[in-house]
Amino acid sequence: MTEDQIRKILEDYKNGALSPDDALNRLRALPFEDLGFANVDHHRVIRQGFPEVIFGLGKTVDQVSRIVESMYKNNHNILVTRTTPAHFERLKQIAPEAKFYENARAIVIQKTAEILGKGAVMVVSAGTSDMPIAEEAVATLKVMGNEVDSLYDVGVAGLHRLLDRRERLAKARVLIVVAGMEGALPSVVGGLVSVPVIAVPTSVGYGASFNGVAALLGMLNSCASNVVVVNIDNGYGAAVVASLINRL
Amino acid sequence: MTEDQIRKILEDYKNGALSPDDALNRLRALPFEDLGFANVDHHRVIRQGFPEVIFGLGKTVDQVSRIVESMYKNNHNILVTRTTPAHFERLKQIAPEAKFYENARAIVIQKTAEILGKGAVMVVSAGTSDMPIAEEAVATLKVMGNEVDSLYDVGVAGLHRLLDRRERLAKARVLIVVAGMEGALPSVVGGLVSVPVIAVPTSVGYGASFNGVAALLGMLNSCASNVVVVNIDNGYGAAVVASLINRL
Amino acid sequence: MTEDQIRKILEDYKNGALSPDDALNRLRALPFEDLGFANVDHHRVIRQGFPEVIFGLGKTVDQVSRIVESMYKNNHNILVTRTTPAHFERLKQIAPEAKFYENARAIVIQKTAEILGKGAVMVVSAGTSDMPIAEEAVATLKVMGNEVDSLYDVGVAGLHRLLDRRERLAKARVLIVVAGMEGALPSVVGGLVSVPVIAVPTSVGYGASFNGVAALLGMLNSCASNVVVVNIDNGYGAAVVASLINRL
Amino acid sequence: MTEDQIRKILEDYKNGALSPDDALNRLRALPFEDLGFANVDHHRVIRQGFPEVIFGLGKTVDQVSRIVESMYKNNHNILVTRTTPAHFERLKQIAPEAKFYENARAIVIQKTAEILGKGAVMVVSAGTSDMPIAEEAVATLKVMGNEVDSLYDVGVAGLHRLLDRRERLAKARVLIVVAGMEGALPSVVGGLVSVPVIAVPTSVGYGASFNGVAALLGMLNSCASNVVVVNIDNGYGAAVVASLINRL
Amino acid sequence: MTEDQIRKILEDYKNGALSPDDALNRLRALPFEDLGFANVDHHRVIRQGFPEVIFGLGKTVDQVSRIVESMYKNNHNILVTRTTPAHFERLKQIAPEAKFYENARAIVIQKTAEILGKGAVMVVSAGTSDMPIAEEAVATLKVMGNEVDSLYDVGVAGLHRLLDRRERLAKARVLIVVAGMEGALPSVVGGLVSVPVIAVPTSVGYGASFNGVAALLGMLNSCASNVVVVNIDNGYGAAVVASLINRL
Amino acid sequence: MTEDQIRKILEDYKNGALSPDDALNRLRALPFEDLGFANVDHHRVIRQGFPEVIFGLGKTVDQVSRIVESMYKNNHNILVTRTTPAHFERLKQIAPEAKFYENARAIVIQKTAEILGKGAVMVVSAGTSDMPIAEEAVATLKVMGNEVDSLYDVGVAGLHRLLDRRERLAKARVLIVVAGMEGALPSVVGGLVSVPVIAVPTSVGYGASFNGVAALLGMLNSCASNVVVVNIDNGYGAAVVASLINRL
Amino acid sequence: MTEDQIRKILEDYKNGALSPDDALNRLRALPFEDLGFANVDHHRVIRQGFPEVIFGLGKTVDQVSRIVESMYKNNHNILVTRTTPAHFERLKQIAPEAKFYENARAIVIQKTAEILGKGAVMVVSAGTSDMPIAEEAVATLKVMGNEVDSLYDVGVAGLHRLLDRRERLAKARVLIVVAGMEGALPSVVGGLVSVPVIAVPTSVGYGASFNGVAALLGMLNSCASNVVVVNIDNGYGAAVVASLINRL
Amino acid sequence: MTEDQIRKILEDYKNGALSPDDALNRLRALPFEDLGFANVDHHRVIRQGFPEVIFGLGKTVDQVSRIVESMYKNNHNILVTRTTPAHFERLKQIAPEAKFYENARAIVIQKTAEILGKGAVMVVSAGTSDMPIAEEAVATLKVMGNEVDSLYDVGVAGLHRLLDRRERLAKARVLIVVAGMEGALPSVVGGLVSVPVIAVPTSVGYGASFNGVAALLGMLNSCASNVVVVNIDNGYGAAVVASLINRL
Repeated sequence: MTEDQIRKILEDYKNGALSPDDALNRLRALPFEDLGFANVDHHRVIRQGFPEVIFGLGKTVDQVSRIVESMYKNNHNILVTRTTPAHFERLKQIAPEAKFYENARAIVIQKTAEILGKGAVMVVSAGTSDMPIAEEAVATLKVMGNEVDSLYDVGVAGLHRLLDRRERLAKARVLIVVAGMEGALPSVVGGLVSVPVIAVPTSVGYGASFNGVAALLGMLNSCASNVVVVNIDNGYGAAVVASLINRL
Repeated sequence: MTEDQIRKILEDYKNGALSPDDALNRLRALPFEDLGFANVDHHRVIRQGFPEVIFGLGKTVDQVSRIVESMYKNNHNILVTRTTPAHFERLKQIAPEAKFYENARAIVIQKTAEILGKGAVMVVSAGTSDMPIAEEAVATLKVMGNEVDSLYDVGVAGLHRLLDRRERLAKARVLIVVAGMEGALPSVVGGLVSVPVIAVPTSVGYGASFNGVAALLGMLNSCASNVVVVNIDNGYGAAVVASLINRL
Repeated sequence: MTEDQIRKILEDYKNGALSPDDALNRLRALPFEDLGFANVDHHRVIRQGFPEVIFGLGKTVDQVSRIVESMYKNNHNILVTRTTPAHFERLKQIAPEAKFYENARAIVIQKTAEILGKGAVMVVSAGTSDMPIAEEAVATLKVMGNEVDSLYDVGVAGLHRLLDRRERLAKARVLIVVAGMEGALPSVVGGLVSVPVIAVPTSVGYGASFNGVAALLGMLNSCASNVVVVNIDNGYGAAVVASLINRL
Repeated sequence: MTEDQIRKILEDYKNGALSPDDALNRLRALPFEDLGFANVDHHRVIRQGFPEVIFGLGKTVDQVSRIVESMYKNNHNILVTRTTPAHFERLKQIAPEAKFYENARAIVIQKTAEILGKGAVMVVSAGTSDMPIAEEAVATLKVMGNEVDSLYDVGVAGLHRLLDRRERLAKARVLIVVAGMEGALPSVVGGLVSVPVIAVPTSVGYGASFNGVAALLGMLNSCASNVVVVNIDNGYGAAVVASLINRL
Repeated sequence: MTEDQIRKILEDYKNGALSPDDALNRLRALPFEDLGFANVDHHRVIRQGFPEVIFGLGKTVDQVSRIVESMYKNNHNILVTRTTPAHFERLKQIAPEAKFYENARAIVIQKTAEILGKGAVMVVSAGTSDMPIAEEAVATLKVMGNEVDSLYDVGVAGLHRLLDRRERLAKARVLIVVAGMEGALPSVVGGLVSVPVIAVPTSVGYGASFNGVAALLGMLNSCASNVVVVNIDNGYGAAVVASLINRL
Repeated sequence: MTEDQIRKILEDYKNGALSPDDALNRLRALPFEDLGFANVDHHRVIRQGFPEVIFGLGKTVDQVSRIVESMYKNNHNILVTRTTPAHFERLKQIAPEAKFYENARAIVIQKTAEILGKGAVMVVSAGTSDMPIAEEAVATLKVMGNEVDSLYDVGVAGLHRLLDRRERLAKARVLIVVAGMEGALPSVVGGLVSVPVIAVPTSVGYGASFNGVAALLGMLNSCASNVVVVNIDNGYGAAVVASLINRL
Repeated sequence: MTEDQIRKILEDYKNGALSPDDALNRLRALPFEDLGFANVDHHRVIRQGFPEVIFGLGKTVDQVSRIVESMYKNNHNILVTRTTPAHFERLKQIAPEAKFYENARAIVIQKTAEILGKGAVMVVSAGTSDMPIAEEAVATLKVMGNEVDSLYDVGVAGLHRLLDRRERLAKARVLIVVAGMEGALPSVVGGLVSVPVIAVPTSVGYGASFNGVAALLGMLNSCASNVVVVNIDNGYGAAVVASLINRL
Repeated sequence: MTEDQIRKILEDYKNGALSPDDALNRLRALPFEDLGFANVDHHRVIRQGFPEVIFGLGKTVDQVSRIVESMYKNNHNILVTRTTPAHFERLKQIAPEAKFYENARAIVIQKTAEILGKGAVMVVSAGTSDMPIAEEAVATLKVMGNEVDSLYDVGVAGLHRLLDRRERLAKARVLIVVAGMEGALPSVVGGLVSVPVIAVPTSVGYGASFNGVAALLGMLNSCASNVVVVNIDNGYGAAVVASLINRL
């Protein structure tokens, strides 16, 4: 709650427009809706121009559909991440325009396609198997109003594939680099550009990759100083931060 | 090397301005200086407006001073991180204007104080013991041309200390949040602002903090989606990315 | 065995009420029943006013039902945790009044609803996905005779949801705080109240949450000094300790 | 800030006792004192009857002494944990009544010896080497107004040492059990009593004890359901929670 | 190969009973049978009076049955560990007297019931869920010719269950103690007896038990100095060593 | 791209055989084919005499078949690792000569059987369960043009099985040693030969083998100094390096 | 306390030799001496023929000397492990016959040299750097009344050094095998003998040996089934168990 | 021992040149020298053309000098790794020609400079701080008779530094790549060459580098299939294997 809002409530109260109880209530009022199992936070959307986002993992079809219903009356884009075909079957009934990006495990209900970012975000991924996470990032970036370019299967053991696309890399305002195994790609990309690089380790690999730990550690220890990191397989989170940067 | 540079070399070669060997050499020429134990990369500075930065840890006094000498002829700010009093004693002789920020373990040779960032960067830290890392971030931010605000000792167990400064938080274009122990502060700050938050776990704590691992994991698993993470105690890296964002 | 019991046996023996062998046996007698694969401990219940509790995980339907049969003749509440629908099918035949709390994976056979706690226990959880563990705690608290209040989906990235219910928090005599991911909620709640907070990390999360390790470490390193911790997903254990505290 | 306080400010503002700016300021006013590097939280003490506590680890002599000076004007007990002889030398000059408990690494400035707990807290430790942590708990318990009983060197490999003191165990309202190595003592003690047991793993041990990790895991997995756990070597935290329980 | 065997070959060679090539071959000859995918080691059995043992995990039905066929002609007991019903279906056809111990995941083909151990081996387990591993140990002990006593569900949180059977414990020449969760039982048992205790951690537990790591660490750090440890869930290995000790 | 190629392009450009744009394109031209989700690298094959290799894990049947189609027109051997029966069903339609090595999870399309290695590579494995990884190595070695010898089930607890085949070991130009559990076999083999040993840890084992971590650490810490290590279960990688060494 | 002792107390009480209070006290009496910081357990020695053992690590000179003084009146051997020169300086004054084994970090006060073991214990170690732990085992074995043979620097990369001493190995009744790095030696020795092998991992190594973890895991996963394991660097514990076995 | 040697002993025995006991002894004779604490293995040197190597870490000055004395009579190069100035002071007295490579922590006593490798070995390192390990590799390579080229400070964040030296890379017969932090350099180098790459992770880094674990995991998960790995900081081991390859 901002200072102006407090001042306004104080004034309304002084000139009698608000009773003491009303003033007190206002000072406590919060723009979220309590569904019992979830507090839907409309406030965040209003404040930030975000789509409304539901983390689908571990939620029942009922829970997801009730949250979407609560959101659907507003005029914002809706994004469901880590979702399932079962979720989609139900949501189609609430929102016929819903689209299911199966690789990305994402459902998008797009009500506005307004571009909010000032430039392009580039999504780069190391191997074919990293693509689902890269595509989660792409879907999120689009629903949040960004121009997106993408470049897949450009792992560091075949540098020419990457060096050849250097100009495209140079055009991005911020980059998301997705890699499993040794997670070296963000360091190499970071050395080729002068803008922030958001590294996303993936759980791709086997043996001593430990489901993404090797890639995560590689990225945290990057010798390129323009690299920051998000959680393993968190394409969504990388896209949110890239969007925020791209709107600055 | 850009396309234009290649075209220019090709032309010079065709019209005889370059011999075959010269053309070949040019195609290979690189703007770095080889000191034997280190390749000083003047290129990066030219390209990015960065200060020249030396990672002091594990380098001898001789190595650091020879690198600084190689850099000193250029007109860029110089930053030595993870440095020691012994490094400083020697560097003062090369650059009398050098300043030693002891808490931050940083030496700064400032040749320009030009402001390159478009807004303010805020550095928030959880506990008194996290301050050295917060101060490394502050020193780096300043030498890279940012306005900086800072807020220390506002851990999540005493929320009022943080909520009271909400307006200052709201003014930042990007925030760096430094915390050890459970590393919860970035999540809380992330929920209060609408801009990117760069989380820096510190090795502060004992027992099951495992020298910063607990804080690192906490930050990677942040429920606030505008949080990205750098390595444990990497105040410098956080400041570099914050600077890049602040220049956008 | 208490001193009084030893004195009584000695006296009975001296005045001939007990033979030497009987005295010896009494000194060894223990109020548990040996089923071969399990020693049912009726003693604990008598001593502590506890429900009789069976940890269902890894036990066959036969084993669980035989233990329940051994307990059912006593007049105490019975609780089966980490249970399955198959367990329930069988137990309904032994105890028709048995109830299955599916989310909480708990079966309750309630014979008394006596309130044994002196105040209310509050159960707070961070996300919708943490609810099964929170509900295991609620079911346990109720069967152990506590008044319970609960508050779900109040994660630290949307502090207003929590701050708004501060009064309810303040009324609890002891709190159980359930959280996955970064596990920061107990630290924040701990700073808002003056009573003990029992933190339950959950295995909710992905990637570097390592099935609850991130949350566990976060809670162990809490900067709030009124926080203690139980095992990952151990809603039952938290409820037992909360009950013991609430009876003091 | 409570509802009553908000009502009072609203009233004062309405009847002119407060100007708009003053009302605004009051709504923001917080009972902590900003030393730049630390926000001293007098509020917590007022609210909770706590001593004022300083975590000494990683703080300079100057920082500790300035915080103590800020606290000393109030009439509360002061406790410095993880402190050093150097801290003590300086603090003696501020507070001649300060006492240094060297084993416990604690400094106590006791201004009141009022008993606030309703019963006794028992501190049990497994080995001689665990004593410093046990003594940190004892010192904290005393400065927070508890009666304390203690029992040292009663590890589980010599059960008779523990079983012999069963009556003393039975008298405690809450127990703190301190153990390194395999950390089995809290499970055994937990089975002997009917009240909460707060387990403190210590970093005592070698090899695969991993500085207390073995003990920590042992305690988190205790088969006694009345056991809760704090961080490795956190005798202070255990004592705080025991005090809160003992005041209920 | 022993010295005597070498002397014998040398002699036979000298007196012409062996050609040079034959002598060479004998010096290399080894009593194992090469099945291509497995080298069946009849030697070990001859030397040690062991049953022939097949580790079933990861072996196909074909592989197991071919190994058993190769062994069946000898007159030794055969033991298959970590086996499956599918293995058993096939083995019954080779050896109709084969018995399947389902809980223990063991198949036994018993050709001799000779007692080879000098005393009794006691198998103690902490919880009902630890029983499969305890029973693997029991099955192995029996097939290796030991008298066995067993005691289940005597976890350390209910010490009276264990203390009551102290006399039975005292009769064992060597003990195997099986426990999951915190793995404290071997330390307690170790303190009650004067003979070697072989501790078997089990993967029973959840959360921070990490599939037996907590129990393993607890046992390795046992404060009872007569405790040695085998791998998690390795009831078979514990029984082998107990048998060797019992034959001494 | 080599110096010679650059010189050739420069010359062609100077003498008019290449237009400026063509020269530029050539300088950028790269011998890979972009399938959108994969960049097929024909270059590597040309340069190194490698088979074309596809890592099948996590790739759809469609993706694998499209990559194979792109490769099939060239005259090189094709190898698909970590593949599935579903992959094979489809590939048979493209390449009827394809063979599926089920144990090794490998598909081979062999167009040339030319021997490229100068000697034999020996593959040694510790247990029957390690054979799939050993066979992946063997399949890879053959498709890359090596003579191969193999020796299975020669674990270190039965040294005679290994010592007996010492002469065969001595004939190898390079050895691959595959082992799970404690991973000791490479150290022992390394001490018996004077050539490089490539150690492959497998995920075979249980409990504290941690899916191959124990074997991996054992091999990294080998006291034999002629041992190098690849990732857990990476029979393919070991075979590639062995092939490269064998061609030297 | 044994059954006989209870019977005796009961009888004495009945015939008036004991008053009720005396009987009660006897039933509680325990043969340990409480020094405040340590409970010296004379009972164990009487029962087991053990030397009295003090774990020196983390104990002050005062604590160690007071414990020794309490023990010295008895006629048992005394062993101080993990001790220091400072401990020795003091103990010499109490017991002039004390000897300091510096490599083994052990002090021995030998009052009897009676041989209690029935055969020889062999101590084998892999490298020169493992010798201090091997020597701790040797010192303990001797003070506990065993014949000892030892064999050092016989690591598995030079098998001939071990195979050559096979006869000496074969003579041992039980073996202790000490190894750091990959910890493979116990598996190899285990395959060469038919008696129990107690494996002691040492913290010798660097890098991925992780202070003995690699060796520990190697030993726990030994493919030789006659191997049991103790904690890292626990030469003392191995010797205790070997002594117990050797007395059987 | 080879087959020929066995045949020779058999023959000598048959024709009376050897008594039975002598024959037996010969069959057991081993070319190593037992110093009590170390078995000096002259055999290995004879067999492999290796220098004699002493691992200095954890050995006393006395132990190292006695081993060197035992070796010095032979005419082979001697290498002491992980050594100290104290070792060197003593060794100079035995071998005045000894040289101390301080950065590499290596002492070399060079008696022959014969080139045994068929080509050049290239040592590449990522950062200035990785140089000591790179130099240990260089020193070892030289004493083992290789031509060596080296390239330092060419980390992946500044690719141009590496790409510029591509021709030098291409000339190597085998490469050693040394890197700390994220350990990405071997993957990049591996993609640029067609020969084996031996990756050496270093303990250089901080925070989540975990003393080289991040680099180690990165290298084990390399997407370049011509990369094998040795232990953290094991420059010596990498050089041994490179030498063996270079002699093929």
